[in-house]
Amino acid sequence: MHTVAVLALDGVVPFDLSTPIEVFTRVRLPGGEPAYRVLICGATPTVDAGAFTLQAPFGLDAVADADTVILPGCADGAAPVPDEVLDALRRAHAGGARLASICSGAFILAATGLLDGLRATTHWAGAAALAARHPEVDVDPDVLYVDNGRLLTSAGAAAGLDLCLHLIRRDHGSAVAADAARLSVMPLEREGGQAQFIVHEQPPAPRGSALEPVLRWMEDNCAHDLSLDRIAARAGMSTRTLNRRFREQTGTTPLRWLQLTRIRRAQHLLEATDHPVDRIAARVGFGSPTAFRDRFKRVVGTNPHAYRSAFRRPAQSTPA
Amino acid sequence: MHTVAVLALDGVVPFDLSTPIEVFTRVRLPGGEPAYRVLICGATPTVDAGAFTLQAPFGLDAVADADTVILPGCADGAAPVPDEVLDALRRAHAGGARLASICSGAFILAATGLLDGLRATTHWAGAAALAARHPEVDVDPDVLYVDNGRLLTSAGAAAGLDLCLHLIRRDHGSAVAADAARLSVMPLEREGGQAQFIVHEQPPAPRGSALEPVLRWMEDNCAHDLSLDRIAARAGMSTRTLNRRFREQTGTTPLRWLQLTRIRRAQHLLEATDHPVDRIAARVGFGSPTAFRDRFKRVVGTNPHAYRSAFRRPAQSTPA
Repeated sequence: MHTVAVLALDGVVPFDLSTPIEVFTRVRLPGGEPAYRVLICGATPTVDAGAFTLQAPFGLDAVADADTVILPGCADGAAPVPDEVLDALRRAHAGGARLASICSGAFILAATGLLDGLRATTHWAGAAALAARHPEVDVDPDVLYVDNGRLLTSAGAAAGLDLCLHLIRRDHGSAVAADAARLSVMPLEREGGQAQFIVHEQPPAPRGSALEPVLRWMEDNCAHDLSLDRIAARAGMSTRTLNRRFREQTGTTPLRWLQLTRIRRAQHLLEATDHPVDRIAARVGFGSPTAFRDRFKRVVGTNPHAYRSAFRRPAQSTPA
Repeated sequence: MHTVAVLALDGVVPFDLSTPIEVFTRVRLPGGEPAYRVLICGATPTVDAGAFTLQAPFGLDAVADADTVILPGCADGAAPVPDEVLDALRRAHAGGARLASICSGAFILAATGLLDGLRATTHWAGAAALAARHPEVDVDPDVLYVDNGRLLTSAGAAAGLDLCLHLIRRDHGSAVAADAARLSVMPLEREGGQAQFIVHEQPPAPRGSALEPVLRWMEDNCAHDLSLDRIAARAGMSTRTLNRRFREQTGTTPLRWLQLTRIRRAQHLLEATDHPVDRIAARVGFGSPTAFRDRFKRVVGTNPHAYRSAFRRPAQSTPA
């Protein structure tokens, strides 16, 4: 039987720890027998999982022997990983096991060095930190998971379900995976990746900085046609200086900053109003509904209608 | 602060236990402060959670004092619930708390008697058992959750996320709930309910029983127009006898059995082939594509295209 070791380090996120238990232990082969054996493995016998502590029945030796090792996220993604853990993971990989991380578990996997030069993902809120800490890893925050064969990473929280179902499909085909998905009350395949869940906060210019007034003016006027020349004129700078200041203070260009502001405002209107999509496109400054749909799809990973369905207000108030 | 007590009984399903921790502890109010305090409460200090054991930091007194009590499922839904647990739950409810179950946690909630006369749901695979055990409860297996105000129940596994997000929306509005949903990488609202995940297994007639040959014939010929008269003729019975035998041996009528067979076969074709929906409708015996779409939507809770997106084969093989 295929053995799945789930690594429980101090600070382990209970949800990420539980996801592989939930998905893998329910899988039955066509003959009815279980397809996987799931072992919770601690580096220490007692593990602090935040809201509770747990006893891990297995240790790091089971990690090194497993067919698949799942790395759940830890509350503190930046916590140093003990050397014996990294050793066990490298040994497992060298022995042919596949390693798959959920959420901030990507930090543990990256610490082994095995992800260097490969694409990876993690929770969208942690993607920038992962990229900064591991510049050799090509971090993509837009997808639900990345499959490099024997090294997989998934996005945050519920994306761990997508990852586990994907592994089942790889191991046993679509029919078995679809049954596992039905038992987990999750689709086997979700549209739109992680991009649709990302909150596109604008990096605010430091209060009192030179850019602050023009950023506020851009937000207030994003419904209008703001060219780079017009923004520069408002800021009283050359376009070249404006671009440099933007790069320094927000990490992006004025027009990209403006686009994200418009998309974020459109997301809010899709969530909070019943305005037709075309009216929203105009209100956030897109000249054509088609340009709006294209850009929205590129940034959010899904179309405005699907986004509204996922994040809309309830159709009616719930009974009290 | 709003206190959420999560009840951890022996046999607790780790995923159901972790879902409220994951969702509620991440919620921040617009000012930045946490909105909920989550307490894991055991009836005993050490709790057997299957793949691991855990220490619950709180006891049943915290259940009775909570604003919201979450009842995760237990591996054995039929396990008797200790009296002191039922007492704590009834006391919490009498004191104004709301009680919400995830998956087979509905069995615990029903055991309090508080669900009598109310609508409720649970994991689709356990719905018939819940209805049989608690005939006073109106069990609906098709929805992701049921909100009776202070008594809520949700479907299996991932539907617990839907329930918790729903509670956050009730408490703090759509914007806060949408942010919690983004952090959980889940939509705030999912289309199609639990119905789309249900496996519509036909209750097989006992091997060698009078109905077995005619059931097999119906399956093999479901693409044809099978009237009740035609089925009865094939079975060599009057339609009245056929109806009675069906009721005894399958719990349903011949035509409803046939419809479910057709829908199940259509689901399989949507998952495993690229045939156009209209061709599938014809292949499983629906005279018109519209009739097929209507019936599919009624049984599965979503339309054939959406179903295919959720459970389709991968577009291409994954890198090995």
